[in-house]
Amino acid sequence: MKAFMDADFLLETETAKHLFHDYAENLPMVDYHCHLNPREIYEDRRFDNLVQVWLGGKQPDGSYYGDHYKWRVMRSNGVDEDYITGDKPAFDRFLKFVESLELAIGNPMYHWCHMELQKFFGIYEPLTVESAERIWNHCNKMLREDPDMTARGLIKKSNVAFIGTTDDPIDDLNWHEKIAADSSFDTIVAPSFRPDKAINIHKDGWAAYMQKLAVSAGKQALATVEDVLAALTNRLEFFHAHGCKASDHGLDYIPFQNYTLEQANAVYQKALRGEKLTTEEIDGYQTVLLLHLGKEYHRLNIAMQLHYSCLRNNNNRIYKWQGPDTGVDSISQNTCGGNIAQLLSVLDEAGVCPKTILYSLNPADNAQLGTIIGCFQDSTVPGKMQHGSAWWFNDNKTGMQEQMTTLANLSLLGNFIGMLTDSRSFLSYPRHDYFRRILCNLIGNWVENGEYPNIDSSLKKIVEGVCYKNAKRYFEL
Amino acid sequence: MKAFMDADFLLETETAKHLFHDYAENLPMVDYHCHLNPREIYEDRRFDNLVQVWLGGKQPDGSYYGDHYKWRVMRSNGVDEDYITGDKPAFDRFLKFVESLELAIGNPMYHWCHMELQKFFGIYEPLTVESAERIWNHCNKMLREDPDMTARGLIKKSNVAFIGTTDDPIDDLNWHEKIAADSSFDTIVAPSFRPDKAINIHKDGWAAYMQKLAVSAGKQALATVEDVLAALTNRLEFFHAHGCKASDHGLDYIPFQNYTLEQANAVYQKALRGEKLTTEEIDGYQTVLLLHLGKEYHRLNIAMQLHYSCLRNNNNRIYKWQGPDTGVDSISQNTCGGNIAQLLSVLDEAGVCPKTILYSLNPADNAQLGTIIGCFQDSTVPGKMQHGSAWWFNDNKTGMQEQMTTLANLSLLGNFIGMLTDSRSFLSYPRHDYFRRILCNLIGNWVENGEYPNIDSSLKKIVEGVCYKNAKRYFEL
Amino acid sequence: MKAFMDADFLLETETAKHLFHDYAENLPMVDYHCHLNPREIYEDRRFDNLVQVWLGGKQPDGSYYGDHYKWRVMRSNGVDEDYITGDKPAFDRFLKFVESLELAIGNPMYHWCHMELQKFFGIYEPLTVESAERIWNHCNKMLREDPDMTARGLIKKSNVAFIGTTDDPIDDLNWHEKIAADSSFDTIVAPSFRPDKAINIHKDGWAAYMQKLAVSAGKQALATVEDVLAALTNRLEFFHAHGCKASDHGLDYIPFQNYTLEQANAVYQKALRGEKLTTEEIDGYQTVLLLHLGKEYHRLNIAMQLHYSCLRNNNNRIYKWQGPDTGVDSISQNTCGGNIAQLLSVLDEAGVCPKTILYSLNPADNAQLGTIIGCFQDSTVPGKMQHGSAWWFNDNKTGMQEQMTTLANLSLLGNFIGMLTDSRSFLSYPRHDYFRRILCNLIGNWVENGEYPNIDSSLKKIVEGVCYKNAKRYFEL
Repeated sequence: MKAFMDADFLLETETAKHLFHDYAENLPMVDYHCHLNPREIYEDRRFDNLVQVWLGGKQPDGSYYGDHYKWRVMRSNGVDEDYITGDKPAFDRFLKFVESLELAIGNPMYHWCHMELQKFFGIYEPLTVESAERIWNHCNKMLREDPDMTARGLIKKSNVAFIGTTDDPIDDLNWHEKIAADSSFDTIVAPSFRPDKAINIHKDGWAAYMQKLAVSAGKQALATVEDVLAALTNRLEFFHAHGCKASDHGLDYIPFQNYTLEQANAVYQKALRGEKLTTEEIDGYQTVLLLHLGKEYHRLNIAMQLHYSCLRNNNNRIYKWQGPDTGVDSISQNTCGGNIAQLLSVLDEAGVCPKTILYSLNPADNAQLGTIIGCFQDSTVPGKMQHGSAWWFNDNKTGMQEQMTTLANLSLLGNFIGMLTDSRSFLSYPRHDYFRRILCNLIGNWVENGEYPNIDSSLKKIVEGVCYKNAKRYFEL
Repeated sequence: MKAFMDADFLLETETAKHLFHDYAENLPMVDYHCHLNPREIYEDRRFDNLVQVWLGGKQPDGSYYGDHYKWRVMRSNGVDEDYITGDKPAFDRFLKFVESLELAIGNPMYHWCHMELQKFFGIYEPLTVESAERIWNHCNKMLREDPDMTARGLIKKSNVAFIGTTDDPIDDLNWHEKIAADSSFDTIVAPSFRPDKAINIHKDGWAAYMQKLAVSAGKQALATVEDVLAALTNRLEFFHAHGCKASDHGLDYIPFQNYTLEQANAVYQKALRGEKLTTEEIDGYQTVLLLHLGKEYHRLNIAMQLHYSCLRNNNNRIYKWQGPDTGVDSISQNTCGGNIAQLLSVLDEAGVCPKTILYSLNPADNAQLGTIIGCFQDSTVPGKMQHGSAWWFNDNKTGMQEQMTTLANLSLLGNFIGMLTDSRSFLSYPRHDYFRRILCNLIGNWVENGEYPNIDSSLKKIVEGVCYKNAKRYFEL
Repeated sequence: MKAFMDADFLLETETAKHLFHDYAENLPMVDYHCHLNPREIYEDRRFDNLVQVWLGGKQPDGSYYGDHYKWRVMRSNGVDEDYITGDKPAFDRFLKFVESLELAIGNPMYHWCHMELQKFFGIYEPLTVESAERIWNHCNKMLREDPDMTARGLIKKSNVAFIGTTDDPIDDLNWHEKIAADSSFDTIVAPSFRPDKAINIHKDGWAAYMQKLAVSAGKQALATVEDVLAALTNRLEFFHAHGCKASDHGLDYIPFQNYTLEQANAVYQKALRGEKLTTEEIDGYQTVLLLHLGKEYHRLNIAMQLHYSCLRNNNNRIYKWQGPDTGVDSISQNTCGGNIAQLLSVLDEAGVCPKTILYSLNPADNAQLGTIIGCFQDSTVPGKMQHGSAWWFNDNKTGMQEQMTTLANLSLLGNFIGMLTDSRSFLSYPRHDYFRRILCNLIGNWVENGEYPNIDSSLKKIVEGVCYKNAKRYFEL
């Protein structure tokens, strides 16, 4: 029996151990897609206790914020909401989480928590009801007293070379500017451009948002779709000037309805009048925006990330109470692969297809994505089209194995740009470590099974590439 | 090489063996979803021979009844229907089955048959053309002469604590009453409420059935949808009074069309007039019934089982000849995950969401189901929302591993209510044993691989929970 | 650590080694579905160098022809198209491919290339940038000088008993006749009937094609759908007379719209007039043709292969430049399982359902196909309905394992007709060897794990069946 989560965690072969410890383990991280708060980075936030870091919950302003992955774990154990997001005493909440965790065998949360305890707090025993109080006190003391247990300290300890936050086009990037101006912090923190609110013409708040977008682009209003495109370009250039390397789109599904500007404008005017749009009209408007942005991403060498197939805010009771991103989302089912291909083909044919990273939340789409990217590769950069790392609900051992195996079967694993955290937490960097172990183990098994030759220079190249160098090359860091 | 299906069958590690033999193996079974005939339980039916138990076929009344899983195995081997469901001599039919089984390597039928021979007949050699006659004679002698080889004897030998049969709302539950009144039989046998015929407004025989439903609820007729809802409540309360713990719905897909009672009633009147309904109308009527029943299940603390994504009676020739459930069904493809979420959200928002168990016949839906349940968990009972055990075509080693791995990744495996037989056969209980071995092996691998600590009290709690205690708690037995 | 791709490649257990080396390895091959050029077989084509065999590219006539699997590997490495399909010097192109291959860890291309080097060229070292020139010179010398390194020599060396090419109904089968008349060549080469162009009423070139079809059937024109059906029957009988054993359909999805001949004829006339058809009309016309052909296949004992769920020519730039089959296709998503069942049911009910082999390019459909075939098995031949071998993008280790595991779970693996190359290359036969290793390993694991008894006669029967004898029986060779 292997020891519980020791230095060789998830590394089943000697080759895997060699690749991980000698090549992967100590490489810097390029966390090109996360949801860290740049203000907290700049202000170098400290935390009071483990519950504040791990669970969060109801904030002083009445909003709900925290790790909804953990909220789901607790809800699945029948824990009362007062302990999950509510105002029960912190240690009581922690204990309820620990009790739930005991039953989370096989869940990535079990591993992430222990990797965080190991990496940041030096705790190598299992977190159980028995050890809970001891660990609680130890961690909270460190959080309060250790000078390195701040936002920046945690990032530094994790050897993070680059952080790509997720930002609204109307953001003034004030905190990014402050970070950039602060020579005491080495990690590059760049904004990513996420224009969902401008694209979601059919969702609540769109019209009000468009007014804000106008102002942020120095206009009084956006009278036409042409104005919208111009405003988005304006903001994208502003982001680009602040080091933006990637955009991000969170779409229910990828639309493709090849509207003319005139058609899209008619839809736009209809929406401004508050009239209900048809699905075709929504798709047509969105397609025009996506094609424009794709072209602009290409011009500015910004990667286009497309995330889709998420059903959001399924539980209306919780959504009304706690708002979005509170743990009541699920995987969706779509048959939009053809749309993705058409969208990319139009861009490619015009010579303006940007670097693109495709992520579906539904793992049943893995094989399709692995084949679509192969249709649009070209010689601008190796692995120009990427099948994104296992995302959200798939961000676990089997999910990552399946995504990487699919990628290896259908493309070149050696050109994969690898892991990202997609996280709101400064403690989440061990997920890169988790990924690297799984990658090295996968490769180790192939080599030990005689499926790839044991040529160390090739293995080193592949492992270092996927863990760090490919992303560095891809985003030109 | 491990011996063929010995005591450590499917148990690859020492931890797996320990967990299975010391904790799982001898626990009682809660078989909360099966298709056993309560009359046969009450009358303590005996069987003449193995073909009668295993294959069945054409019954004296001209209907076809038996294990269509085995019929498929034989059909896939090109066996003539006379041997499969027809009137060829029993031993000849048995031999054709044995010949087919030889080619069923990797098929769960291979394992189930041998587990049944081991458990009930003490036979530990492989069933082959060579051993067939010997085994045939041995088993038939036991079936005819051994006083314990009756319906009740087989249940008792299997240590079954609870049996949930599947019953029509119009059933008078006469046999259930007789069983309950018989103090010589310890196993609890409760009816489950399966109102498919009332819900399937678009299928043949619906109108005639509604007349029967009226009578069973003490009415002359059901004039309106309100009357239908009242009749269903009436019958559900009758079932509840007879110990009903679960309902069951077999739906092509889960509909969601949030009709008012008035709208549903208009559809109902149209259907009574024999007019053709649109898909929207069918969905609207069904949604109103499902929402009403969900509320009533919640009130009476009855679990709601939703089974979907089956294409039934695909082979029209066989269907016309042999009727439904004769081995010509397949997996369907649906994109109704959003409907499930909406249905549950409406119930949850009204505070009347019942305990729910979701089963899709399509394994490509596993990940989606694993995420939907997480949106509706609450503090009424741990694991209130369940992703049901691998069902029907998925009820095999890889299918169970995948369902449990998905569940572990996305929820708490430790709160899973586990296995059911879904079977018509009194010999099918070894499927619980099969499940328990696969569960213990999965957990054993995690522990031996250092992915979960070797804390025996936690492992015992999880294993005993999934095998027995969680279902006991969930159904309040 | 196992040696790199040695004699026991992919064989992890002693049982697997025994089954492969003693039973599977030396059996003849039945390659019932490939895209070899019969003219090249007849003329016994030679090749200049490895790039000509492996990559192909732009042909003297301006068309593009070659192994688009390898083109994708190179494009995914950012290689310029001049090296992939263009006119760069052959060795430079080869080197670019070798460089790309280094990163293709886990990709079947890595294995196929090395198996080809081993089998045909006696090279057992890894193909790397270091060994590239040495291997290049060695292989090219053999290709030019070794008398056995011709089309026929390669087929003979691979012990191929039967080759089923893929042919258009209007083909005069001239080269097939010449091969059949040549007594110096033992391998049977038969045409397969692929009437896609007649069925694709909605695609460019259909009307012109129908004119050619008329001529090939000895008519001036095909005035009605009845004429189309008669012409197809005429050509099918011609193919049958030339030894045709299988047909093949490449469909976007399987349609089912049960049109009358009159309705189909109305669609046909509309199409001839150049009017745009609705999806229903296209489906109706196609269904009528498929039902007619199914009946005729049944009459002539020709197997019906249905391939679907491919999105073709996704990259419009490359498609316009290089034409179809140039590496820009992907997996599609369809929910047409119900249509397949209906199509087969109509044929079955009329007593004219042919032997059928179903292939979806989307592996998420595996389980559905495994269940559909079980609905239509009958006693005409064991395994009459087949779930076809892992196809195209799924033709890799995990894809084959998953297809065979699904098949084993849901049907009888022992009746599987096994592997085909689907290839344009005379070097592709090691894919049968690859398949056989994976099959033997799968079975070996089951036996060594105690899941199937170690009865050598049964294992031999299953292995020899799947590798050779089942296909021989199925196609009556």
